[in-house]
Amino acid sequence: MSLEDPVELAEQVLDGSTRAGARLISWAEDEDPRAREALDHIHPHTGTAKILGITGPPGSGKSTLVDKLVDHLRGQDLTVGVIAVDPTSPFTGGAVLADRIRMTQRATDPEVFVRSMGSRGALGGLSPAIFDAVRVLDALGKDVVLIETVGVGQGEVDIVKTADSVVLVAVPGLGDDIQNIKAGIMEIADVFAVNKADRPGVDRTVAELETHLKLAYEGQGEEAWRPPIVTTIASDGTGVEHLISSLDDHRAHLEATGELTERRRTRVEHELMLELREQLLAMVFDEDQARSRFQAAVEDVTQGKASPAQAIQAILDGWDDTP
Amino acid sequence: MSLEDPVELAEQVLDGSTRAGARLISWAEDEDPRAREALDHIHPHTGTAKILGITGPPGSGKSTLVDKLVDHLRGQDLTVGVIAVDPTSPFTGGAVLADRIRMTQRATDPEVFVRSMGSRGALGGLSPAIFDAVRVLDALGKDVVLIETVGVGQGEVDIVKTADSVVLVAVPGLGDDIQNIKAGIMEIADVFAVNKADRPGVDRTVAELETHLKLAYEGQGEEAWRPPIVTTIASDGTGVEHLISSLDDHRAHLEATGELTERRRTRVEHELMLELREQLLAMVFDEDQARSRFQAAVEDVTQGKASPAQAIQAILDGWDDTP
Repeated sequence: MSLEDPVELAEQVLDGSTRAGARLISWAEDEDPRAREALDHIHPHTGTAKILGITGPPGSGKSTLVDKLVDHLRGQDLTVGVIAVDPTSPFTGGAVLADRIRMTQRATDPEVFVRSMGSRGALGGLSPAIFDAVRVLDALGKDVVLIETVGVGQGEVDIVKTADSVVLVAVPGLGDDIQNIKAGIMEIADVFAVNKADRPGVDRTVAELETHLKLAYEGQGEEAWRPPIVTTIASDGTGVEHLISSLDDHRAHLEATGELTERRRTRVEHELMLELREQLLAMVFDEDQARSRFQAAVEDVTQGKASPAQAIQAILDGWDDTP
Repeated sequence: MSLEDPVELAEQVLDGSTRAGARLISWAEDEDPRAREALDHIHPHTGTAKILGITGPPGSGKSTLVDKLVDHLRGQDLTVGVIAVDPTSPFTGGAVLADRIRMTQRATDPEVFVRSMGSRGALGGLSPAIFDAVRVLDALGKDVVLIETVGVGQGEVDIVKTADSVVLVAVPGLGDDIQNIKAGIMEIADVFAVNKADRPGVDRTVAELETHLKLAYEGQGEEAWRPPIVTTIASDGTGVEHLISSLDDHRAHLEATGELTERRRTRVEHELMLELREQLLAMVFDEDQARSRFQAAVEDVTQGKASPAQAIQAILDGWDDTP
């Protein structure tokens, strides 16, 4: 059967073909024009997978934890897809590469689909292909899709926070951890995992998190979700079952309160925003006239004839006049 | 004198008022509408500062090196501005914060202007305000503007590579350093600084860089700039003078070959592209009709009535029809 025709490829994805899924994700990453038709075709059949996001600082043992989560979920007879978002970072090399190698080994289980993806698209913004990949794994019939990001950039956090449930991995003694996690990050956590809990300082880290949560959730109603703190030792699997049951609790909360729909709406909003940003820019450069207008603007600013704001205005004015 | 009126503020910037400069940068960061008028006013008076970019992995001692560069430049009676780009990273805390505190101490020298800025703008993309800040420092009359980025994200590298000259800081023994620096990063360097050169492994790091350069520059003409490799020990200042003379050599090369104009054009191109991306998106959301069209699209995708691509198309089609 051909893997070149978008509709056929989409059909194979819906039949659960991992190979077809991998190919469709590649099309999306490469911005192959066939991706759109195939993605349009699978879209009505998506929306059933549970989407979990996992993030944390480098060195928190996050990837080992993902490994163990996958093992446990497989033990519950669930199929799993993992998207490891590489921060497209020029300098982190080591850790990211090691993850990738390790995870490739897991690819021998046909029910576990693992894919590493760069976080940036062709024009430098966050890659909308990551959302496409989530949808492909969903269409493949995966029960759970794990999005793992090395939390070293805002962009990576922006991706992970669109999951149904987010695990923020902390670790004792990583230089006063909690204080180093900037405002706005703590609040994306639905569950905290304090990993490497056999290390000294774990009590202090847990206590700090508890203090933070107490302050953050003060005055909120009984029905509000208050992120549980789970201690784990990913290397030997300690606490992983507890982590999974906490995620199940969060899921039940999402479904009971209608928050699940809200979350999914936010994810779509974020995705459309990213896509729109790239498409608008692409439109400006698709057109010869617009492109030459842009080059003229660059020239004007370089030569000091116009300020950047004036030059941008000229581009936008010109664009409006174009039929 | 008032610091509220854009033209007056711009005039004070041109008179060299650090306070006015700091304020104008804040306006740009906050997207205060007055920023544009003030920036338009100063623009014709910019273009004289030398712009240096410095990047490298966390732990390379890059900030100490920047400190020492500033000291040496001040010793040559040059005025200096430093823009430290914070990767807006949720987890790097420590180092970035330490930098900031240290650099604040340098702020006692009135001829050294230091500013930390986040790398992201309001809508999540790279912040165009960084380019505005460079221009403000230029207008203040700084002879040299140093842009320092912790090289942990592609975005930060994108910023620094728009400088006239770029120093890439490497360090011996940081886990097979050179291999960890991804393709596309090595080539932004105009000068390599192998810092912490009192550490074991420095010869190997230099040799690896030399091998890399030999391959990269094979077959290029005699007139091509070949990045020198300078060993430094930032903590005691060793090699900093050599680094500065290498940067002077690069400057002379840029001027002799006309490449300086080319670099500056590239910088403007990059800036206008960023600005355009944000403005186009802002336009979509400024308009009530467009915003409600966006919300309708989000709803359609959430409910599975349209794929993301179909929804985006509907937004763009609707937008084109708007007068």
